[in-house]
Amino acid sequence: MKALHFVASALTLAALSSAASATVVNRAITEAEVLAAQAGWCKALVDISQTGEKSGPAAAKALAEKVIDGAYGYQMGAVLFKPTLTVVPQTFRTTRAGALAYFVGGDSNFPKDTGFALKGWTQCQSKNAAVFITGDSATSMGNVMITNKSGAVTTVDKTWKYVKDDAGNLRIVVHHSSLPYAGN
Amino acid sequence: MKALHFVASALTLAALSSAASATVVNRAITEAEVLAAQAGWCKALVDISQTGEKSGPAAAKALAEKVIDGAYGYQMGAVLFKPTLTVVPQTFRTTRAGALAYFVGGDSNFPKDTGFALKGWTQCQSKNAAVFITGDSATSMGNVMITNKSGAVTTVDKTWKYVKDDAGNLRIVVHHSSLPYAGN
Amino acid sequence: MKALHFVASALTLAALSSAASATVVNRAITEAEVLAAQAGWCKALVDISQTGEKSGPAAAKALAEKVIDGAYGYQMGAVLFKPTLTVVPQTFRTTRAGALAYFVGGDSNFPKDTGFALKGWTQCQSKNAAVFITGDSATSMGNVMITNKSGAVTTVDKTWKYVKDDAGNLRIVVHHSSLPYAGN
Amino acid sequence: MKALHFVASALTLAALSSAASATVVNRAITEAEVLAAQAGWCKALVDISQTGEKSGPAAAKALAEKVIDGAYGYQMGAVLFKPTLTVVPQTFRTTRAGALAYFVGGDSNFPKDTGFALKGWTQCQSKNAAVFITGDSATSMGNVMITNKSGAVTTVDKTWKYVKDDAGNLRIVVHHSSLPYAGN
Repeated sequence: MKALHFVASALTLAALSSAASATVVNRAITEAEVLAAQAGWCKALVDISQTGEKSGPAAAKALAEKVIDGAYGYQMGAVLFKPTLTVVPQTFRTTRAGALAYFVGGDSNFPKDTGFALKGWTQCQSKNAAVFITGDSATSMGNVMITNKSGAVTTVDKTWKYVKDDAGNLRIVVHHSSLPYAGN
Repeated sequence: MKALHFVASALTLAALSSAASATVVNRAITEAEVLAAQAGWCKALVDISQTGEKSGPAAAKALAEKVIDGAYGYQMGAVLFKPTLTVVPQTFRTTRAGALAYFVGGDSNFPKDTGFALKGWTQCQSKNAAVFITGDSATSMGNVMITNKSGAVTTVDKTWKYVKDDAGNLRIVVHHSSLPYAGN
Repeated sequence: MKALHFVASALTLAALSSAASATVVNRAITEAEVLAAQAGWCKALVDISQTGEKSGPAAAKALAEKVIDGAYGYQMGAVLFKPTLTVVPQTFRTTRAGALAYFVGGDSNFPKDTGFALKGWTQCQSKNAAVFITGDSATSMGNVMITNKSGAVTTVDKTWKYVKDDAGNLRIVVHHSSLPYAGN
Repeated sequence: MKALHFVASALTLAALSSAASATVVNRAITEAEVLAAQAGWCKALVDISQTGEKSGPAAAKALAEKVIDGAYGYQMGAVLFKPTLTVVPQTFRTTRAGALAYFVGGDSNFPKDTGFALKGWTQCQSKNAAVFITGDSATSMGNVMITNKSGAVTTVDKTWKYVKDDAGNLRIVVHHSSLPYAGN
C-alpha cells in the first residue's frame, strides 16, 4: 500500500525529470519484436519449402543453414529444441546438426528425419495465447498453423523463447512444438 | 581474437582484485536451483495424488492451490502453461483457475478436466536434455517420467521456464508439456 | 548483412502474426518508469527535508525509513550506495542502517553523519546524460540539482541502477553520487 | 512461510532430478568474471601508461582503442561513463570518442583532456565494497587504488556495471568514478 502511494506521487512529479537530451540504449525485447520474429520464422519455413521444390534439396539445405544460423542461438552453446515430429531417442535437438537434419533431412546420423521443411508448405501463421517478456528474454506460447499444397492446415502448439543478440536480433534459444492432444 | 587475448590477461591478474570483504548479492539462477524446482514439482504432483486418495478431493484441491501459488508465477499476470492433456479450445491455461482445473478438475468452466494430479501417481522424476540459463531466467527441456499405482510409467516431453521472485524462490512462468510423437 | 535482410523480411510479414487476443506480461523496465522513479526520489528528498522542519527529526526519520524500504533494494541483501558526502572508512553504505544514517543522521555507529536529507532542501530535479536499459535492469547517469532554502543549487553527478520487484515497482540497487570534479 | 517449506521439500528430493547427461548453457555473470574484468581493466591502464612511456602517444592511443573496443560496450549504443577527472560541460563520456580522449588526450573536441592513462601509472588494484549480480548484468562498487612512478597512491570510488556479450566477455556499460569526498 505504501509502495503504491509512493509510486503515484512519483508519477505526478515525473515532469520534473527531464530526459530531453538523454541518450537511451534500450535492449529490452518488445512484443513487436516477438511478432516480427515469429513472422520471420513462418516466412523462412515457406521459403525453404519453395526453394526445395524449385531449386532442389541442396539449395533448400543451404537456405536452412542460413535460417538456423540467423534465427536460432546454437552459437551460444545449445538450443532447447523439441521439434513437432521427432521420436525417441532423438527427440531433443540441442545441436545445430540436429536442427538442420530435422528441417531438411539427408543426415545419416538422424535416419528418421525426412525433412520437415520440405513438405511443400505454402503458408504459415502464428497466433499467440500469451507472451511473457522478462526483459532480456521473451517467451511466446500459442498455435502455429501451416498449410500444405492441397490446402490442408496443420496446427501445432508452440513455445518459443528469444534472447537478443549483440546485433539486436532476436534468437530462438527454446523451441518446443507438439501436436495437439487428441483427447481419449 | 583480440578480445580473447585480453580476457586471458585478465585471468592471469585476477589475484590482484581483492573481494575478501565484499558483500555479494547474486540473484542469478543456478542449475542446482533448477533441479531443486523440478524435484519440488515432482514431489508436489505425487503429494496431491496421495492427498486426494487419503483425504479426498477438497484436501487435494487445497494442496494444489498452495502448490500453484508457491511454484508458478500467476501473480505476475499470466503463466504460459500448455498442460499435457488439454484440448481445443482450452489448450492453454494462462490463468490460475485454468491451472487448478487441470490439476484437480471439478470446475464447470473447464468441463473436460478430470484432474490430472488425481490419477494416483506414486513416483515422478525429471531428466533434462538441456538447461539454458540466461541469468534472470532459466529454461529446462527434457523428459518427466511419472508412475501410476500399477507401476506403468508415462513419459512426457517437458519445458519449464523459471524466474526468481523477490524471496529468492524460482517460479514457473512457462510450462509446455506434451506426449511424445508416436511416429507414423 | 544476411541477418539484417532476414529481419527486414520478418517486419514485412509481421501482420501475419496475430496477437489480437494474446495476454502479454511485460516486465521489462521502460524509460518512463526510470523517469518516474527519479522524480519519486527527488520528491522524497524534499518531503523528508520539509517533514524534518515541520514535524521534527523523529518524523523525518520515520519518513526516511518508509522511503528507503519502498524505493531501495536493501531487502535483496545489499545496495551499492556511495552517497555524495560520506568519508573513509564509511564511504559505502551497503546496509539499510548506513543509508538511514546518511539521510537523517542520529546514529552513533555513523558519527560523521549529520543528515543529508535534513539540510532544508526545497527543490530537486534530475537530468539524465544517458539511460541504459538491459531489460531486467536499467541504469541512469546524469546530474541531480538540489536547491536549498536560500536558493543555492548543488549539482551532483549521479548513477542509479534499478530492478523491478515482484509488485512491479522499480528499486534502486546501485546509487553512486559524487560532487563534480573541480579541475585543477 | 509456505513457500519456504515448499523449497525445503524440494531440496530434500533434489537427488531425484538427474542432470547427468544434460547440456547446460549458463550465461549468468559470476563474481569471478567480475573480478577478472576488474583486474583486466587495471592491467590495461598500466599497459597504456607504460606503452606511452616506451613507445609514444600514438602507440598508447592504439592500445587504448583496443582496450575500449574490447572491454566497454560502446558498440551497443552508449556507455554511461563518468570518468574521475572530467569537468562541466563534458563530464559524461557516453561516446567512444569521449572515452578515448579521456584516456589518451589529443582530441581538440575535448580540449581539457590531457590523457588520464598517460600519467605514468605503475600499479592498479581494485577492492570491492559490494557486488550485485542480477543475472544478465553485474555491478561492482568499491575502491580502485592506482600508483604512480613516485609511489604515490590515488584512491577513487568506482562503480562498474557489466553485461556479457555474445562471445561471453564482460563489457562495461556503466562506469562512474569519483575522487573521495574530502569532508568539510
